[in-house]
Amino acid sequence: MPRIAGRHFLQIPGPTNVPDRILRAIDKPTIDHRGPEFAGLGKSIFHNIKQIFKCAGPVIIYPSSGTGAWEAALVNTLNPGDRVLMYETGHFASLWKTVAEKLGLVPEIIASDWRRGADPEAIEARLAEDRGHDIKAVCVVHNETSTGCTTRVGDVRAAIDRTGHPALFMVDTISSLASIDYRQDEWGVDVTVAGSQKGLMLPPGLAFNGLSEKALKASEKSTLPKAYWGWPDMLAANKSGFFPYTPATNLLYGLSEAIDMLLEEGLGNVFARHDRHAEATRRAVRAWGLEVFCVEPREFSSSLTGVLVPAGHSADSVRKVVLERFDMSLGTGLSKLADKIFRIGHLSDFNDLTLLGTLAGVEMGLSLTDIPHESGGVQAALDFVAGSAAKETAQRVAAVR
Amino acid sequence: MPRIAGRHFLQIPGPTNVPDRILRAIDKPTIDHRGPEFAGLGKSIFHNIKQIFKCAGPVIIYPSSGTGAWEAALVNTLNPGDRVLMYETGHFASLWKTVAEKLGLVPEIIASDWRRGADPEAIEARLAEDRGHDIKAVCVVHNETSTGCTTRVGDVRAAIDRTGHPALFMVDTISSLASIDYRQDEWGVDVTVAGSQKGLMLPPGLAFNGLSEKALKASEKSTLPKAYWGWPDMLAANKSGFFPYTPATNLLYGLSEAIDMLLEEGLGNVFARHDRHAEATRRAVRAWGLEVFCVEPREFSSSLTGVLVPAGHSADSVRKVVLERFDMSLGTGLSKLADKIFRIGHLSDFNDLTLLGTLAGVEMGLSLTDIPHESGGVQAALDFVAGSAAKETAQRVAAVR
Amino acid sequence: MPRIAGRHFLQIPGPTNVPDRILRAIDKPTIDHRGPEFAGLGKSIFHNIKQIFKCAGPVIIYPSSGTGAWEAALVNTLNPGDRVLMYETGHFASLWKTVAEKLGLVPEIIASDWRRGADPEAIEARLAEDRGHDIKAVCVVHNETSTGCTTRVGDVRAAIDRTGHPALFMVDTISSLASIDYRQDEWGVDVTVAGSQKGLMLPPGLAFNGLSEKALKASEKSTLPKAYWGWPDMLAANKSGFFPYTPATNLLYGLSEAIDMLLEEGLGNVFARHDRHAEATRRAVRAWGLEVFCVEPREFSSSLTGVLVPAGHSADSVRKVVLERFDMSLGTGLSKLADKIFRIGHLSDFNDLTLLGTLAGVEMGLSLTDIPHESGGVQAALDFVAGSAAKETAQRVAAVR
Amino acid sequence: MPRIAGRHFLQIPGPTNVPDRILRAIDKPTIDHRGPEFAGLGKSIFHNIKQIFKCAGPVIIYPSSGTGAWEAALVNTLNPGDRVLMYETGHFASLWKTVAEKLGLVPEIIASDWRRGADPEAIEARLAEDRGHDIKAVCVVHNETSTGCTTRVGDVRAAIDRTGHPALFMVDTISSLASIDYRQDEWGVDVTVAGSQKGLMLPPGLAFNGLSEKALKASEKSTLPKAYWGWPDMLAANKSGFFPYTPATNLLYGLSEAIDMLLEEGLGNVFARHDRHAEATRRAVRAWGLEVFCVEPREFSSSLTGVLVPAGHSADSVRKVVLERFDMSLGTGLSKLADKIFRIGHLSDFNDLTLLGTLAGVEMGLSLTDIPHESGGVQAALDFVAGSAAKETAQRVAAVR
Repeated sequence: MPRIAGRHFLQIPGPTNVPDRILRAIDKPTIDHRGPEFAGLGKSIFHNIKQIFKCAGPVIIYPSSGTGAWEAALVNTLNPGDRVLMYETGHFASLWKTVAEKLGLVPEIIASDWRRGADPEAIEARLAEDRGHDIKAVCVVHNETSTGCTTRVGDVRAAIDRTGHPALFMVDTISSLASIDYRQDEWGVDVTVAGSQKGLMLPPGLAFNGLSEKALKASEKSTLPKAYWGWPDMLAANKSGFFPYTPATNLLYGLSEAIDMLLEEGLGNVFARHDRHAEATRRAVRAWGLEVFCVEPREFSSSLTGVLVPAGHSADSVRKVVLERFDMSLGTGLSKLADKIFRIGHLSDFNDLTLLGTLAGVEMGLSLTDIPHESGGVQAALDFVAGSAAKETAQRVAAVR
Repeated sequence: MPRIAGRHFLQIPGPTNVPDRILRAIDKPTIDHRGPEFAGLGKSIFHNIKQIFKCAGPVIIYPSSGTGAWEAALVNTLNPGDRVLMYETGHFASLWKTVAEKLGLVPEIIASDWRRGADPEAIEARLAEDRGHDIKAVCVVHNETSTGCTTRVGDVRAAIDRTGHPALFMVDTISSLASIDYRQDEWGVDVTVAGSQKGLMLPPGLAFNGLSEKALKASEKSTLPKAYWGWPDMLAANKSGFFPYTPATNLLYGLSEAIDMLLEEGLGNVFARHDRHAEATRRAVRAWGLEVFCVEPREFSSSLTGVLVPAGHSADSVRKVVLERFDMSLGTGLSKLADKIFRIGHLSDFNDLTLLGTLAGVEMGLSLTDIPHESGGVQAALDFVAGSAAKETAQRVAAVR
Repeated sequence: MPRIAGRHFLQIPGPTNVPDRILRAIDKPTIDHRGPEFAGLGKSIFHNIKQIFKCAGPVIIYPSSGTGAWEAALVNTLNPGDRVLMYETGHFASLWKTVAEKLGLVPEIIASDWRRGADPEAIEARLAEDRGHDIKAVCVVHNETSTGCTTRVGDVRAAIDRTGHPALFMVDTISSLASIDYRQDEWGVDVTVAGSQKGLMLPPGLAFNGLSEKALKASEKSTLPKAYWGWPDMLAANKSGFFPYTPATNLLYGLSEAIDMLLEEGLGNVFARHDRHAEATRRAVRAWGLEVFCVEPREFSSSLTGVLVPAGHSADSVRKVVLERFDMSLGTGLSKLADKIFRIGHLSDFNDLTLLGTLAGVEMGLSLTDIPHESGGVQAALDFVAGSAAKETAQRVAAVR
Repeated sequence: MPRIAGRHFLQIPGPTNVPDRILRAIDKPTIDHRGPEFAGLGKSIFHNIKQIFKCAGPVIIYPSSGTGAWEAALVNTLNPGDRVLMYETGHFASLWKTVAEKLGLVPEIIASDWRRGADPEAIEARLAEDRGHDIKAVCVVHNETSTGCTTRVGDVRAAIDRTGHPALFMVDTISSLASIDYRQDEWGVDVTVAGSQKGLMLPPGLAFNGLSEKALKASEKSTLPKAYWGWPDMLAANKSGFFPYTPATNLLYGLSEAIDMLLEEGLGNVFARHDRHAEATRRAVRAWGLEVFCVEPREFSSSLTGVLVPAGHSADSVRKVVLERFDMSLGTGLSKLADKIFRIGHLSDFNDLTLLGTLAGVEMGLSLTDIPHESGGVQAALDFVAGSAAKETAQRVAAVR
């Protein structure tokens, strides 16, 4: 195969395009993880990362994938046989349920058509029924990576509160943290599960648990077996900037850089950027005459957009041609959505021009398949992005006057 | 200023977006430039680079900018007071003339409106007049970076040949080499002047002279003072892979990688890609209702496109807004073209999606200025690129049958 | 604090000095972990890594620290309450025991003075007693990082075999793999536990389980809860080069490079180099009048050397002054060895001159403390290394004749 | 050939070991050299570099080797046929003379045995004779890289002043700048010639001219032909942070980082470090029973040490075996010193332990040749370095009291 020129467009909904600053940060020489320089790095990270989670409590960092952070959230707080209420927002919610089962918990999952976030009322109804408080935790996915639907986490919190149910509240933010506004403390989340390879702009290899006081209390009585994932040793060592076992030092260099970059941009600007790109993408999808998979506008994801192709057509045919002809990776439909949707990732270190290049790739890819569609998607997105810029300019001018 | 997310679009006509492979190559530890490892590197570069110049003779490599290679070409072959015939294709041709003057030569420049390449017939006419062979060299710019017009080098050669004039033929390929087909030997070029920071995909810092037998012979009698630029010491040392003074070792690592990458893609594919991107860009320009600065279709540049904005409007206003709002650098109009044209670079390590992102940036930028224009440029480019892909796919299918 | 010039000497027994080739490999852009390029990378790694473990069966790769690989070895093969025979060679053997306890196993540990490897005869004796085969696994540490003593793994295997006991045999090679000869299959090891940050020359963040047929069979019946660490999903996905959850892609780039580098050097050469550096280090220690902590010559570690300081003196005082004055990190004494020994790491990507610089740092550091010692350690090491080179040269000359 | 483990020791007297911070700086994406970000970079470099030259006037930066900066110094200030007084301190002083000849100047060189710096009194005597002021410039090499002898630049200045001669004073600091104390303004130097690849810790590819008012005035009348090297266009463009032609952007990233690093360490500390390493090296050489090539103690170089081997023995035999067996590059003897001396570079980003590793390599290398010598050189150096550290510690303690 001859070489393909230019940069690959990694438009899966994570791992995302890692910015150069972070790549260069992670390739610095590894240092002694028990020395004073490391202590400084560790303390700074443990302190600053709270701004990303919007929490006051500790954030645990594992050398691990997000799957490990799911496991860690459960084994640190629960007991064998505990009932856990989950919500089947999509493929990843289902996988988390499988993890719970494997660990000896009894997950109960509220089914869904995968085209919306978790329904706060359904959760409220189920908790209200649970007078004996058999349910020990409610677990939802903030942004379902397999579908492009978000859960209104604050509304779920309110629903739980209305029932007065004491269950822990755990939220998977793997593909939302640092891309979509998330507020651990304000929303009363007990364990936030996160990973490095999406909005945090890092390569995969780090996973996180953000903890509430309530979660910490629960962990004192939890009897599920745990060693690697155990919070107490982590918390004890983290106090002085260290880890109980060898941490993934070079990825921590990248994490430190990533936090700096997010704060330099401003989290509010980061979220607004993701919102703008998601809206532009949806306009493109509609102009193509295709369907945005998420059907609930207030639950549209700003990290990715699932695109439904007409019945009888292959979503993977778009992905294949786009990869082969235009060197862009798009997300595939997972499990029951296989070949029915493709997913466009528009998160992390990403700008207007790369978004429009991405959408151009999709539009050209569609034209090389037999999927019925209109052209004009890129134009619609471009008009929206240009309009946003014009509006912002006008606002600045007005502000100066 | 808050941080801007994503990668900068460096769409000036050079320096160009340096690919990661090359950036990583140049950041390897510097080695002993007199040791056996270096000799292997040097020999391999001196051998392989001939495929890029399409020449059999030696290629000299200087730690220098392209300006130095202009100087080197002149001081190695000419004598004080020698008459040199140049062609004013644009700003850079004028600068080369200034270099010649400063070095004590007598350049004679054929004027032009800058909207086309050098005219072979005008050169032919002038040489035919020069019965005493006072003109010692004819110098043209293959791709005039300030305008986006190319000179038909083969046709100039033929014109020279028709006169039987013995002048040396020197060609500046700074923004064409490895982007637009160039054939030193077939076109009878005596000195090819080139630089690292355009089609060779490197950062700036290396410059080249590709030499013919005739140039080498001329250099034996040349009396212009020279030390740094002197070919003989270079040629002597290069034979064993070395340099007469410390070379820019780390940029040579990058050069070695660049040559590999170009050969992996195939030079024919590289040129076809640049041609496709240039045609797509011109279609966008016309759809916007703007004018491609170059007026001679067979002399359109495949490296960059100059875009003329309507009289009374500021080309730099587009550049400014595109940089501020969309983090893309475009080329400015130089000297007499200042504020009249902007230049879109579409060369080097560049692909379809980045091109379309680039054009989207221009279209959005135009919409934020008062320059009268139509929308639809990106769509026109996209249709062309998608059509090219469809055609190529059809050809492959046919070929398999 | 003013900047300190030059490269830090990271002479703890891991993480080790990561070579540039690997740092540059891990800073390449992250790719789609479900795409064809990744499949190629994954398949190649899974195939080639067997040469490092000297095994025919699969090697599982986790985004994790070595501690995770300890856990994985246990939870995949054992059942709650299972008895496990361990050997207290030092701090890390003790930690592994703690992991076993936390996971609900019943470890039984054979005590030791930490100054030698696990005693095959003691293990044999204990297994011979265990007529009911209550012991389900024997776990030893090949190279005890906290002491610098190795266990003769082949001899332990023979001891187990003499008893005919069916227990699984698990070996921690975290600080020996790719530094000290290790032969999973020949020595009948069922689960090899390893990590990335020592002999594999990578930053920390990857951990390994090398599996025998017997281990795989045991895993089918194991009932300890597990999700993240579960082998079956791993093995299923690995077959096509993929992972069941997002892998640490960039560290895998580094792993691929590391395997190439080890094979380019030749494993036999790698081991000989480590042996030479360890012997040179011990000669230095003795010349200083200090004691090598390991008392059993056939169990000296080639990865690191523990150095005992005279009673009443502080080993950490050497480490402190060496860090502050000479920018070198040495390993501290762990748990009961705190302040009694310091540890010199001489493993991974390391050469003769860096070893001698390291030993010079120790000798100079000693001179800045009140620890009684002689000078001449560096000289003794230097003489040995030069002698080795002379001997090898003589052998080559003889071979040529 | 099997791979050699560990880092190469690049102990030639330049190019030197480039620190990781600089390698990572130069591999950042190239930016628009006419945009606002570049202007900021340029201005900062032009301002800060004056601290390194200890000058108030401008410092010109070329994409070039040091050889180019020799040429630039001459062509900008002199006229054809001008007489230039040079001093043959060694190979590089001779090369500079050759450059002067090639450019049409008339160099007059004071001969020397190469074992000392330029003699101020000899220069004084020659200038005193030159009553007609035919000599237009005095050129000396501050640190002669081929021998390891320095010239007392301040004393030469005083000698010139005593004669009242108006000649320009030009100094080559290629292998001294940022390693050995140098004071352009205090010593009344008119043009300082420097390069990037020695004390500035960069790869080769940048060269410098530091200018006095007098040099600038001379440049107004200079008639030697020049284009690339011309100061006026440089000075005009540099004012706003730019360059008249494309600069070597990525090396400028490195230069910016290098200046930061030098100032972070403190120039005084940098020089003290080089002095310490040079003294340690000389003690090693004497302990080996070999001769330091420089015979004048107050002119010993702190950048490198030339080592004379006994007559009838091959200096290159040491270099060869040291490269092959210990992966270290040493400097060769140049022109008339070929095979008589070898040179140990101990400059740039270098620390005590790397120095001792370097000397160990030399001592071991000697032992593998037939060159008569004693052992104990490393020990002597180590004792000196440890003693320096002890003394410094004592001083700090005293200071605190």
